[in-house]
Amino acid sequence: MANQPWQEAIKECQSIQENSVNKEWLLPADKIPSAEQLNVIDVPKTCGLLTAKELEITETSAGDMVKKMAAGEWTATEVVTSFLKRATIGQQLLNFATEFMTEDALARAAELDAHFKTTGKIVGPLHGVPISVKEHVGIKGRICHTGYVAWVKNIAPEDALLVKLLKNAGAIFHVRTNEPQSLMHLDCTNNIHGTTVNPWNRKLSPGGSSGGEGASLGFKCAALGIGTDIGGSIRAPAAFCGSYGFRPTALRNPYKGVILAGDGQESIKCVIGPLSNSLSDIELFQSTVLDQEPWDEETSLVPLPWKEVTPTKEFTVGILRDDGIVRPHPPITRGLEHAAQVLKAAGVKVVEWEPVDHSVGWEIVKPLYFPDGGACQRSILEESGEPIMPLTEWALDYGRQLTVAENWDLNVQREEYRARYHAAMKERGVDFILCPTYVGVAAELGTPHYWVYTAIWNILDQPAVIFPSGLHVDQELDKIETDYKPRNDVDKREYERYAPEKFVDAPIAYQLVGKHYKDEETIAAAKVIEEILKKA
Amino acid sequence: MANQPWQEAIKECQSIQENSVNKEWLLPADKIPSAEQLNVIDVPKTCGLLTAKELEITETSAGDMVKKMAAGEWTATEVVTSFLKRATIGQQLLNFATEFMTEDALARAAELDAHFKTTGKIVGPLHGVPISVKEHVGIKGRICHTGYVAWVKNIAPEDALLVKLLKNAGAIFHVRTNEPQSLMHLDCTNNIHGTTVNPWNRKLSPGGSSGGEGASLGFKCAALGIGTDIGGSIRAPAAFCGSYGFRPTALRNPYKGVILAGDGQESIKCVIGPLSNSLSDIELFQSTVLDQEPWDEETSLVPLPWKEVTPTKEFTVGILRDDGIVRPHPPITRGLEHAAQVLKAAGVKVVEWEPVDHSVGWEIVKPLYFPDGGACQRSILEESGEPIMPLTEWALDYGRQLTVAENWDLNVQREEYRARYHAAMKERGVDFILCPTYVGVAAELGTPHYWVYTAIWNILDQPAVIFPSGLHVDQELDKIETDYKPRNDVDKREYERYAPEKFVDAPIAYQLVGKHYKDEETIAAAKVIEEILKKA
Repeated sequence: MANQPWQEAIKECQSIQENSVNKEWLLPADKIPSAEQLNVIDVPKTCGLLTAKELEITETSAGDMVKKMAAGEWTATEVVTSFLKRATIGQQLLNFATEFMTEDALARAAELDAHFKTTGKIVGPLHGVPISVKEHVGIKGRICHTGYVAWVKNIAPEDALLVKLLKNAGAIFHVRTNEPQSLMHLDCTNNIHGTTVNPWNRKLSPGGSSGGEGASLGFKCAALGIGTDIGGSIRAPAAFCGSYGFRPTALRNPYKGVILAGDGQESIKCVIGPLSNSLSDIELFQSTVLDQEPWDEETSLVPLPWKEVTPTKEFTVGILRDDGIVRPHPPITRGLEHAAQVLKAAGVKVVEWEPVDHSVGWEIVKPLYFPDGGACQRSILEESGEPIMPLTEWALDYGRQLTVAENWDLNVQREEYRARYHAAMKERGVDFILCPTYVGVAAELGTPHYWVYTAIWNILDQPAVIFPSGLHVDQELDKIETDYKPRNDVDKREYERYAPEKFVDAPIAYQLVGKHYKDEETIAAAKVIEEILKKA
Repeated sequence: MANQPWQEAIKECQSIQENSVNKEWLLPADKIPSAEQLNVIDVPKTCGLLTAKELEITETSAGDMVKKMAAGEWTATEVVTSFLKRATIGQQLLNFATEFMTEDALARAAELDAHFKTTGKIVGPLHGVPISVKEHVGIKGRICHTGYVAWVKNIAPEDALLVKLLKNAGAIFHVRTNEPQSLMHLDCTNNIHGTTVNPWNRKLSPGGSSGGEGASLGFKCAALGIGTDIGGSIRAPAAFCGSYGFRPTALRNPYKGVILAGDGQESIKCVIGPLSNSLSDIELFQSTVLDQEPWDEETSLVPLPWKEVTPTKEFTVGILRDDGIVRPHPPITRGLEHAAQVLKAAGVKVVEWEPVDHSVGWEIVKPLYFPDGGACQRSILEESGEPIMPLTEWALDYGRQLTVAENWDLNVQREEYRARYHAAMKERGVDFILCPTYVGVAAELGTPHYWVYTAIWNILDQPAVIFPSGLHVDQELDKIETDYKPRNDVDKREYERYAPEKFVDAPIAYQLVGKHYKDEETIAAAKVIEEILKKA
């Protein structure tokens, strides 16, 4: 039991959160949209607090931003200040940040500017690029509570390895972002910082567990973001918030210094990866990190540099419209049909992808999330006495206490399933699978219960990238399918949750999945597909 | 419980073993060395049963053998017949084989010869190369009992993936080899086929668990061999028998189709790799396998092709003379001192390697071998009612039933230990570690209890290659150190086991260890070292 009530324990974190906001950059009371205004995505443009240059900077890709700084057109200080200002508005409207690191960020920007002034050179490929980072990724000397009240005294002894490598390349970390209790929700609420909401529709979830990152990138509070993903935690936020996100193959990106309950669980590996506002920024992030050979410090990593892959449309895309368990909502179905038609018209080989027993895959991955029956997470929750949230209970119920031998048996099943899925892709000649990220465009707050559209690629350990379709929920085109007869209770639950008016303005995203270790090829193919869709 | 006495169950396997021997190739009674003749390594040369050409063939490296066949100088049939004849003598003297596959081998040789006759070309880089293979590596349609009486009805449904790839390259599998009960001895005896002995001294163990392979390569019954290694099972046999053996980094060589109790245990991975009679044959084996991209079938493998590495002597070797737990016997110490002096004289940078807490490493790996407390192995042994052998009990005692969370904790410790060892190598500027393979040159039968000199590299997952020093136990030079005071009970046990007269003629081997994933560099460095030693 806790020594003090949990409500006391969180005060320091809340105070850090509040006090780290620069009040000068807040929207004045008369500029704050009313609670009824759900879509706040354009507030930065309409509020008048950001200059035209600040708007331009925050809507520029990381890659282009670095070019501007390298050319001396923008300074790092200007860039970071622009993002800090926009992020402050984001915080007011979305509650996405756990902590701003304004002082450190501006000090580093000044250093970079001084370096550039003296040498005429940038320090690395991410010179001056502001990056937001999920709270449980260690930042030296700062609290890392990982969404648990019991851990509010936990200070990270050093930066996570990924953070170090990005800093080496010139990146600036200016804001840390929110995550759900236990980190096992596709939603974003905890007892310390409360609930983060979606910039496109504040009644909707930003996704999770990297929900603060989804909101951050969706609202353009950062040029790049860092999330983690064991069941969809990078991808759901990227999709829900209209940004980009990448789940790499496990053991490619350095994970050291991420603070997560249940360390040593290796049957399903949590991965770390980028969120962004373009596919080329994902490549920039990945190449910057892997060019530094992180495997020479984190020895479990695979020594595979990030390859340059020339995009070509000589590939076959399988369209997975429905996983056979839960039928996606109408906007998702429309988005996939749109892609199928446009790609075919552009000469890309498109086939239907019949899912390979996703229910079998889910029954393997589900118990592997908590093979100790969730005892580890429950004991941390009990330590502080904080209330267990409904979605935490929901996730912990996936598990039961397994014996070591039962865990082995699931590992064997997992390997067989991976081999079977890979063989199916080869047999059918499919290089990439284009599929939903979630049953719908975004979940209502507190409701993302269905993980299979993302988690299936975690058990398969296949790289998956999220990118926006450019389409949004349309009240006319995306009506309820009144004649649909749900196949099972889960399908019924998710079917009944849909009505177009609940999801006004929400963006429609795609998930593109490649084969194991074909990370570079997957991003390259997504670029080709996005290019074709943009031209259509 | 078994339906029939275990002594009945094994009869079919024994009959296969006996009947598969071509009686025409056996040594006649008057040529069989007496039981007192311990060293039988020269019998093939002295017995008169092999022609000069057959002797030449069986003493040629796989690489050179292929060149001869490619030039039309030797036929595959000649090559395979030569090895079958030599292996038959080996079987008489060493009991290393569980089964000859003479008919299949000769049929395949005839096919290869026909192909060469028609096309003038060899089928691949291992055209006509005879390979012996450890019994638990699946061969389609043949019994795979893995050293357990309970499994004598287990028929492999297909060839192991590694076997398939080697066959694709032209290799011929002519003999399957013995292994110990449970596969967890550094020795080679089971209740089905009995005991395999060492060709240099038949009172000594050939090592284990790939002991049949050690004997096979030591006696030159095959040009290449396949073993498996989770604690030293490729390396101890290679060292004890004076041949070469390679434990690659895990997840490089294809493991699919190896039949082992406890599948799904992933904390310490069993690896498969070659035994040979030269370092260049190890490279040939590895490149042949990895050039076929086995990761496109076995999806857990890392997609790293075998790199060509140019040997250079620009590296630093750390000499590990003593692991701080058990002091090696005098011949091992002499061998390492010899290498240190010769290498220094040749201008190689040699430093002393102070071991990084090998006792800590052993305490992590030991419980991970049997995190179910050995329940899996015990239940298989109970199923047939076969007697449990003392070395099986010894190994199973390493384990206790762990919870999943205890297993996680050991995984975390393992990762920390790996990172610490790697950091020490970097800090001290050491590229490779030259060290003992075992406390002594070989163990007496039934006595290999001390695994740490090999197992430490399993927990560290570092590549390790065994090669002979060219030296052998010398009754004058390798006297007992009478003034040595053992540091602990284990040290005392091993110290008291040594006397030069027990190990007459046994070869002295080296183990060279590289960094994680530096497999190619490790073999290349071993080649440089061997070349220098040969010239000295």
